[in-house]
Amino acid sequence: MVDVPDIVIGRLPIYLRELTRLAEEENQTTTSSHELGQRLGISSAQIRKDLSHFGEFGKQGTGYHINYLIEQLREILHLTQEWPVALIGAGYLGHALAHYDGFKPRGFVITCVFDNDPRKIGENLNGLVVSDIHDMESIIQEKNIKIAILATPANTAQEITDRLVKAGVKAILNYAPIHLNVPPDVQVSYSDPVVQLQRMTYYLTP
Amino acid sequence: MVDVPDIVIGRLPIYLRELTRLAEEENQTTTSSHELGQRLGISSAQIRKDLSHFGEFGKQGTGYHINYLIEQLREILHLTQEWPVALIGAGYLGHALAHYDGFKPRGFVITCVFDNDPRKIGENLNGLVVSDIHDMESIIQEKNIKIAILATPANTAQEITDRLVKAGVKAILNYAPIHLNVPPDVQVSYSDPVVQLQRMTYYLTP
Repeated sequence: MVDVPDIVIGRLPIYLRELTRLAEEENQTTTSSHELGQRLGISSAQIRKDLSHFGEFGKQGTGYHINYLIEQLREILHLTQEWPVALIGAGYLGHALAHYDGFKPRGFVITCVFDNDPRKIGENLNGLVVSDIHDMESIIQEKNIKIAILATPANTAQEITDRLVKAGVKAILNYAPIHLNVPPDVQVSYSDPVVQLQRMTYYLTP
Repeated sequence: MVDVPDIVIGRLPIYLRELTRLAEEENQTTTSSHELGQRLGISSAQIRKDLSHFGEFGKQGTGYHINYLIEQLREILHLTQEWPVALIGAGYLGHALAHYDGFKPRGFVITCVFDNDPRKIGENLNGLVVSDIHDMESIIQEKNIKIAILATPANTAQEITDRLVKAGVKAILNYAPIHLNVPPDVQVSYSDPVVQLQRMTYYLTP
């Protein structure tokens, strides 16, 4: 199969999110690339082209059956199973992530939390007991965890990343404001609010 | 001036972040597109091309003076002033954002926090008192705030966005898992951890 561009892959979760909204909040059963595009600020042609990489999901005139398209997207994105996730860092951001109720309905469950601060180890975070970061590798391997969320300061992020990779983690969502070096078979996704704000201030009049 | 592609603008804050690291953590005074590229996993040609949109910052052989390039990037991105930011939502994520110490050194200060929950209004969040969301527009206009961070549930995000836009906000960092409709002169940047995780699971073996 020809590789699908990563930018296309990046839009699929947004389609999935909006389709789920249409089904659950608006009780719709069908939609069109036109409607979906209008709701997302994306052209309908782009949506049709993106989806065409994976098959034929809609019919001229009748559009998409929402539940079927949701199912297909969940299969394409490997969301038919629930993914266990390790959370590294039990600071303010770790607390927010541990309490976020948006993970489970969309395919992810934080199953362990780690910190190196003796005052945080043993703390109960929304039902999860914070573990000593010394036990990170053994717990991750035991639970066969492939995904980690990094919510640590920048200065420890690379060292922890190296340990995560050695323990078998293949995808890291990184909140630390630093670029991470990983082997080519490991995915990293970045979330740095300041990078996002600075991109926007370019367009603002000071 | 020819419009610079948004994808180029999006890389400038990452260059700025890495240059600042080089200066502050590694005490370097000069660098090269090669070194910067190696540290960021970006080709040196890409970095030179990106920067060439804005002028001539380096010399063949000697590379870039880090402090000079930092200064130039801060000017390009409109970071020579400090931007006041309104935070909407004082839940777990709002707490994390209000306590994040990475904003101020990089050009942003959260100057007000709003919530609609009477139990949260009046609460002290890292020195900021949570205001009633009913006063949001008047406070934003009084303080001439152009940037907001949205940390509310999805179901209120669009309504609050409409109010922010009416109050003069021109850039929104949106943590609510929903697409926002805004006029063309308003920037929106999205942060949804599940969208980021789902993009990565595409590449994982279930």
